[in-house]
Amino acid sequence: MAQQHLDPTDPTAEAVTGDALAAYLRAQATEFLRALRLHRENGGNGGGAPARTAATAGGGGAEESVDAARLLRRSARRISGSLHTFRALLDPDWSEEMRPELAWLSGTLGLEHAYESRLERLLLALHRLSGATAFPGQVASVEAAATALSPAGGPAAPAPERANLTVGAAKAGALLERQLTLARTRAHSTALQALGSSRFHAVADKVAVLASEVPLTPTAPTTDLRPLAAAAEERLTDAVAGLPLVTAGHPYNAEALVHGLSPDPSPHPQDGPWHQVRLLLRLHRYAQEAQHGGNAPVDVRVLTAGQALNRHRDASEAAAAAAQAARTPRIAPATAYALGVLHADQRHEVEAARFAFQQAWQKQTVSAP
Amino acid sequence: MAQQHLDPTDPTAEAVTGDALAAYLRAQATEFLRALRLHRENGGNGGGAPARTAATAGGGGAEESVDAARLLRRSARRISGSLHTFRALLDPDWSEEMRPELAWLSGTLGLEHAYESRLERLLLALHRLSGATAFPGQVASVEAAATALSPAGGPAAPAPERANLTVGAAKAGALLERQLTLARTRAHSTALQALGSSRFHAVADKVAVLASEVPLTPTAPTTDLRPLAAAAEERLTDAVAGLPLVTAGHPYNAEALVHGLSPDPSPHPQDGPWHQVRLLLRLHRYAQEAQHGGNAPVDVRVLTAGQALNRHRDASEAAAAAAQAARTPRIAPATAYALGVLHADQRHEVEAARFAFQQAWQKQTVSAP
Repeated sequence: MAQQHLDPTDPTAEAVTGDALAAYLRAQATEFLRALRLHRENGGNGGGAPARTAATAGGGGAEESVDAARLLRRSARRISGSLHTFRALLDPDWSEEMRPELAWLSGTLGLEHAYESRLERLLLALHRLSGATAFPGQVASVEAAATALSPAGGPAAPAPERANLTVGAAKAGALLERQLTLARTRAHSTALQALGSSRFHAVADKVAVLASEVPLTPTAPTTDLRPLAAAAEERLTDAVAGLPLVTAGHPYNAEALVHGLSPDPSPHPQDGPWHQVRLLLRLHRYAQEAQHGGNAPVDVRVLTAGQALNRHRDASEAAAAAAQAARTPRIAPATAYALGVLHADQRHEVEAARFAFQQAWQKQTVSAP
Repeated sequence: MAQQHLDPTDPTAEAVTGDALAAYLRAQATEFLRALRLHRENGGNGGGAPARTAATAGGGGAEESVDAARLLRRSARRISGSLHTFRALLDPDWSEEMRPELAWLSGTLGLEHAYESRLERLLLALHRLSGATAFPGQVASVEAAATALSPAGGPAAPAPERANLTVGAAKAGALLERQLTLARTRAHSTALQALGSSRFHAVADKVAVLASEVPLTPTAPTTDLRPLAAAAEERLTDAVAGLPLVTAGHPYNAEALVHGLSPDPSPHPQDGPWHQVRLLLRLHRYAQEAQHGGNAPVDVRVLTAGQALNRHRDASEAAAAAAQAARTPRIAPATAYALGVLHADQRHEVEAARFAFQQAWQKQTVSAP
């Protein structure tokens, strides 16, 4: 790969051009094909459980335990993001056709994992709220929490940890487990169907072509990437400027739980701008990767801010799942009460994540030259 | 009054002695008798509503809108606190007999106000959680919130603000209003009974004697108050040192909601040490008052820290009331859900109050010489 090792702060450095973008896209397409091969070898015929495989070579040690579907999504997101940020350098017809297909694939493959981690998050929170541990994060393992709360444990099964749970917490955990496991199983089937569909094969074929030949415009190979990357960063900065960061930086502002009992069916429009910044931050990160290839410097600010926004998204969706579960007909009041506490707890997590984002962002803005 | 105007930081200043304590106790006893007279003139024959009267003279402008019962409690607390802190300077038999009677009176008279403000706090929170306002504290008035939530409004009454509430929030508000209004009415009757009892008349007679003659020990008039006041401050400092202030100073530590779903009938023993510090802070403040009379310098640290601990206590009790209401038999799941959200919200308030206390305490510790 024709990586160019540049210091982005050095104005005399040689420009990173469309050639670097082509190399990045080829590399991501290759990753996609490798993940697809892994998936076919290991997970394409799984049951309800998520297909977990180890990346055997090349992709870097940190990826080894990540499942193939996640690797597929990872490269699909990067290709799609680069197509967006650097669309001026790419064949427009090809780009226009490719992006929605990658978005469909990434969305379809991501649902199963999303339901799985949402359930984990909610069961851990229920356990924490039941006082089984002194601090969040001190639960020995998610499995222990899930076992203690699982309806599979049954009332007769010896479950010492269950003794710490109220009837409401145990029932809420069982209800969430039932609903989110069902959703996960459906998402798994949908993902398997998608991976066997002609629509997917068409995407895979296009990615296979991309791995050897990137449809750059005629002038792209010598065009500087940096103005386009800078524009992506500017979109991010503008969106961050629109966030209520002053409020977010004031701990315990109680803002995230406003509308916690709103009759509005979509009660948290306030989360939207944060989700948007999360996507723009990702696009910015991918643009940096495209410029620096495998040698992109680790930007702690972007990393920390991105983690805070992931946590924001996860907590927002977990809170919505708890509220949704509470609308299940004929549940006991104790179950509904536990779900209310859980909902508020996750909205509090949303607020905490905003504070963490504000801190990360602010710290770097101050210390930057 | 023989007030002594001393700078406590000046070691060469003339000592404040038992004479100053006697003056302080006489002044508080006089306040007590004035409040009692106000109460008899205005509120002694009231119905279910709290007796609200204006202090007409002497007690300071800030007190004018405070009701007579509150003024009674105010002076009873100060007398009782001084008896405790400076007990070495006072006739022990008299002190031993007086203190429990003042505590009984203060506790009995305080309940009505406690239930009233607890209901106000919970209704405001329900309103905020329903998204009726953008920020806490922006509700136009408690009355508006109560009107919108009140069951007295009835389903047929025009209640535009109710349109913003879910069924669950409205029902939870109505349930809390019913339960806490009943408790308040009972507390009001109990307080009226207490004020008409021979037990109360015995206390009032003792306070009347105290207004002219303080039973100091023979050596007390020339004994320095400062070592005893310093001991009270030390008890406070020791208790604060035992608080988990490192955790409290870390925003969003999620500590206050641990045990939020615990089956433990007394789920928040973690609040106890904070309540204890609140009482010790009050004793410290009264000891300062006794030393400085009407000229006690305003200690912003003590003031801010005390407000945070009052908020801590109020939120803790409001959270417990929401949890208690959720145990009412045969409530709808939507009501229970709203009460769960409300409980968690108030536990967040508990956590926020601890953070505020830590900030107030820390700031002064750092900036102090």
